Amino acid sequence: VITAGTSQALDLTTTLFSRPGDTVFIEQPTYHLAVRIFRDHPVELAGIPADEDGIKVDVLASTLDRLKRAGKRVAFLYTIPTFHNPTGAVMAADCRRRLVALAAAEQLRIVEDDAYRELAYDGPAPPSLWSLAQPGVVIRLGSFAKSLAPGLRSGFITTDAETAARIIDSGVLDSGGGVSHFASLVIAEFAGSGEYADNVERLRAAYRRRRDALLAALSGLEGRASWRKPAGGYFLWLSLLDGMRTSELLELAEAQGTSFMPAAPFYLDPASGARSLRLSFSRYPPEMLAEAGRRLLAAAARGPLR
Amino acid sequence: VITAGTSQALDLTTTLFSRPGDTVFIEQPTYHLAVRIFRDHPVELAGIPADEDGIKVDVLASTLDRLKRAGKRVAFLYTIPTFHNPTGAVMAADCRRRLVALAAAEQLRIVEDDAYRELAYDGPAPPSLWSLAQPGVVIRLGSFAKSLAPGLRSGFITTDAETAARIIDSGVLDSGGGVSHFASLVIAEFAGSGEYADNVERLRAAYRRRRDALLAALSGLEGRASWRKPAGGYFLWLSLLDGMRTSELLELAEAQGTSFMPAAPFYLDPASGARSLRLSFSRYPPEMLAEAGRRLLAAAARGPLR
Repeated sequence: VITAGTSQALDLTTTLFSRPGDTVFIEQPTYHLAVRIFRDHPVELAGIPADEDGIKVDVLASTLDRLKRAGKRVAFLYTIPTFHNPTGAVMAADCRRRLVALAAAEQLRIVEDDAYRELAYDGPAPPSLWSLAQPGVVIRLGSFAKSLAPGLRSGFITTDAETAARIIDSGVLDSGGGVSHFASLVIAEFAGSGEYADNVERLRAAYRRRRDALLAALSGLEGRASWRKPAGGYFLWLSLLDGMRTSELLELAEAQGTSFMPAAPFYLDPASGARSLRLSFSRYPPEMLAEAGRRLLAAAARGPLR
Repeated sequence: VITAGTSQALDLTTTLFSRPGDTVFIEQPTYHLAVRIFRDHPVELAGIPADEDGIKVDVLASTLDRLKRAGKRVAFLYTIPTFHNPTGAVMAADCRRRLVALAAAEQLRIVEDDAYRELAYDGPAPPSLWSLAQPGVVIRLGSFAKSLAPGLRSGFITTDAETAARIIDSGVLDSGGGVSHFASLVIAEFAGSGEYADNVERLRAAYRRRRDALLAALSGLEGRASWRKPAGGYFLWLSLLDGMRTSELLELAEAQGTSFMPAAPFYLDPASGARSLRLSFSRYPPEMLAEAGRRLLAAAARGPLR
């Protein structure tokens, strides 16, 4: 199913596959703008913790059990298993297996945001949850926003035939026959010419250099902050190890002429993000990221973190 | 606010401005695919009769009163006052005035589907409800689907600043910064070159000829069916005056190699449309419409209508 980007797909998925009062599970942290989409619908949100290896499947299972006992219906789990926004994390193979098994057993629908898959820097991206699960479990949201151009507002859903039929049969897709004919045709022409694959390869190479430049620039923070090398996507997640709060570092960083996204908006409970932050490396050339890293270190050196 | 066409705008408007269990008022008949969009949301539908001069404002007032007394909340009225789909009707000036006055007095929001405004064949289209109402009453949905190309999936909302701010602040628009950057830029370039206005003028001239060809072809049905000359838009509404049911005529017409849209899908109660039908003239050249008219007459001549 062709969509007008991941956000339209997520909005439509929420309209079609939730009922008023349902709970939507979201990872903690998660993409904050997806949460804004959910909040426009009459659903409740429940956060499930996730770490560098993915969502905590045991916590998911117990939370699901608790809600079911309370008579609550769960619409779906929204997850970004591959090159997570904001953490850059990749859900581990074992976690993927346990997650799709639990979802199948509990009839829990999974909405897999797979917008960053194409941007893999250290070998191929892991198999999607959709490819691992039995049909009917996963709605996978793909996108051309990251692999080609966000302004095209074009993406796609891969799912089983029955679920796809329900989406295609929605009023909003049926009325116009789709939401993205024009951009999709342009993309199809572009892909048919072979340019799309070349473009993805160029982006991978360029973003890999950017990621590596940022990683090199951060080495001076070792011991004072922790991070993992992101294997793909746009983001690097930094946790401050002691003392300084993200809000303090942000103020000092901006005084140095650099900035970042503090973690608080990625959590239902902003306090959870008090000592973490998201660095985006996709938009800037390596030398600018190196300079930004120097300024971030200078900012950190001025705070109580030192 | 730029939208991905009227259907996406209508879907988003319903998401943002209704609560579960609310009632949405729709004209009877109305655009059947809009109804499909509403049905994807947890709202109830109530039909308000309309005739060639527009919605019955007195029925609207009494229905609103009855629902309010029953403790029901009304989300909005969805109306197509100008070159109606399916009837081609234009809401009369007096009806417009009374409608916006009632809406203001009762704090009833109006969603005005104004997709056909540009296609006026007999002088300028009447002022929109939005232009007549005080701010905060009307959300007007405009479109480039009819005036340029449906496949662009691009349209726009005109409304007051506060309502616009709520729409712009929706999760789905905020996430991608919009839903139609690419097509909208193409349209802006096209409009800036003067081509857009020229194109609308060409469409008006072409569709006027098509409408007139269809009207001429229908003259043989006088006395057996009634219709009004549509002053704009795509559609002519035909009511069979005695005897034949639309379903019978459709079968006979298809045997003659022509077809039309029966009225039933445009009503909540399909029986209401048993003797009406919608003829679309926008897609066919005049000579083909003349031939289709001949075939429709031949079909009518074979039925109990004769």
